[in-house]
Amino acid sequence: MSELRHDPIQKRWVIIASDRGKRPLDFVPDAKNKKESFACPFCKDGFEKRIPYTISEIRDSNQNWQVKSVPNKFPALKIEGDLDKRADGIYDVVNGIGAHEVIIESPEHDMDIPSMSIENVHNVLIMYRDRLIDLQKDMRFKYVIIFKNHGQNAGASLEHPHSQIIATPIVPRTVTVELESARQYYLLKERCIFCDIITQELKDNKRILYKDNHYVSMSPYASRFPFEMMIAPVPSKHRHDFSSTTDDELYHLAIVLKDTLSRLKKGLDDPPYNFLIHTSPNTNSNLKGSYYYDTLHYDFHWHIEIIPRLTKKAGFEWATGFYINPTPPEKAIEYLKKITVD
Amino acid sequence: MSELRHDPIQKRWVIIASDRGKRPLDFVPDAKNKKESFACPFCKDGFEKRIPYTISEIRDSNQNWQVKSVPNKFPALKIEGDLDKRADGIYDVVNGIGAHEVIIESPEHDMDIPSMSIENVHNVLIMYRDRLIDLQKDMRFKYVIIFKNHGQNAGASLEHPHSQIIATPIVPRTVTVELESARQYYLLKERCIFCDIITQELKDNKRILYKDNHYVSMSPYASRFPFEMMIAPVPSKHRHDFSSTTDDELYHLAIVLKDTLSRLKKGLDDPPYNFLIHTSPNTNSNLKGSYYYDTLHYDFHWHIEIIPRLTKKAGFEWATGFYINPTPPEKAIEYLKKITVD
Repeated sequence: MSELRHDPIQKRWVIIASDRGKRPLDFVPDAKNKKESFACPFCKDGFEKRIPYTISEIRDSNQNWQVKSVPNKFPALKIEGDLDKRADGIYDVVNGIGAHEVIIESPEHDMDIPSMSIENVHNVLIMYRDRLIDLQKDMRFKYVIIFKNHGQNAGASLEHPHSQIIATPIVPRTVTVELESARQYYLLKERCIFCDIITQELKDNKRILYKDNHYVSMSPYASRFPFEMMIAPVPSKHRHDFSSTTDDELYHLAIVLKDTLSRLKKGLDDPPYNFLIHTSPNTNSNLKGSYYYDTLHYDFHWHIEIIPRLTKKAGFEWATGFYINPTPPEKAIEYLKKITVD
Repeated sequence: MSELRHDPIQKRWVIIASDRGKRPLDFVPDAKNKKESFACPFCKDGFEKRIPYTISEIRDSNQNWQVKSVPNKFPALKIEGDLDKRADGIYDVVNGIGAHEVIIESPEHDMDIPSMSIENVHNVLIMYRDRLIDLQKDMRFKYVIIFKNHGQNAGASLEHPHSQIIATPIVPRTVTVELESARQYYLLKERCIFCDIITQELKDNKRILYKDNHYVSMSPYASRFPFEMMIAPVPSKHRHDFSSTTDDELYHLAIVLKDTLSRLKKGLDDPPYNFLIHTSPNTNSNLKGSYYYDTLHYDFHWHIEIIPRLTKKAGFEWATGFYINPTPPEKAIEYLKKITVD
């Protein structure tokens, strides 16, 4: 059983996943660099049949699956059991309870979002939303994280296009910081901080890559990384919870997501990237007694972060939590706008 | 002139270093992987003579330099100018004012801390402390960060053994979180949270690699990374500010630092790592009007973090600020204790 341990100084939780099979020497670079050749576990002609079961799938009119959700073979958190919240001397610890699923985005191994049809991207987003809705029913899970690692340097261990979903029994610190900022701003101004930022960005029009009546794709003013991107609902479509997004809205989201990822792929030679959805905490869960009780987080604004992994995060950034970005977001947008995509 | 931009949602500062010479296409992997061969700028038979000036140096009895501090050729922040704190609509921005120095740890290119004599490690630490004391005299600098990137995968762009010092006009968020935790704990208990943690760890003796009358080297309970280490003064030698460390204490620190890095090098085949000193903010600087006014931070406890770069930080960690660590710190210490070093 893995554990969630709390760092009382940095106030962050760490999953100590002792049963994921890594022994100390697995980290020695020589051992690490040996690549095993194997049949892709997500391909029909690979080991797909070894996947114990399918959690959910979307099929086309010929009954062939297009997107499916399956259990992660090496889950960081396990679904069975109790949290057993307890002290370990000065520290806090809970059992590693949660959910860890893999979304297989396509039956085709060499597919990616820029190459998919809008309909297929739409199906991936529908799967994200529907898994989110389902996992939010479990009262033990306070937060559900949807993310994608593309490319080995972004942490992807398999090439086959896939995303991951992790449901956690605590609200992670990064989300807590955003929730608090949004709440403080709302209490002061009775406006959403994200809506105000997007309104200013639309007016300045220096960091906007794409906008329509539903979504905006932009590079944040204080981007930590070159070509960092954010996709969010425009102020007139303010939503705090990704799970409330309609099928029609997801179709528009598919268009902007495909456009943004296509420009990054073509302009930066298919860079490794991470893609994450920040949504509000699970308001179905039992938040009584926590900071987040009695609130539905209408003052939050869900968004997608896309982080190309072009620079190495080094000591200065670790030490300080602040970042050196050699490419101003205005220059990144100027460059990406010139890329022609289908 | 670079800028420090503030993210109002994540409450973090980012250095947008537009004059560091990176154009968008510099990040395309093909261009990036071309390695230029050049004479090492820190070696006597390289381009050392091109370094414009030496800030400070320590010489041996034959007047040969052992450690020197020089200006960074591509500084993230520049020493000349005013901060010019201002608003940019909803955002906050200041000029990229600060100091960015390189500590050349040895005249020898193929040297590293595990191979150095204790005397040479001691000289490196004396240089750290003395540069810290000097930079703390500048009232514009609220914080001074001392860090080291070892190996290309930890962000080192040069092989020659070196560290860096950056003085910043703001207190970085990671440090702010630690200061607040230490303050809250002290107000509640009138004890240092770090001292209490170290006392518990010494009693448990499961995560301690080394201890003497001055310092302890341990793997934190909620380690984010495999083989993450922390070196700190023992409770009886509690210090909030690294600059107050005496020459004699630095000699003891040299022993524990060399021991810890030697075990990591031998046990993990010379892994890339980052090494950082977390000390209190610059209490000489003008903190009036800020959260940190009227305090000397006696309740903080300086420490060194050592982070071997063995795993790739991927989407889940970025999304949440929490981490999956496949190696429990107890197992890491069990392994490192068995390594024999000189």
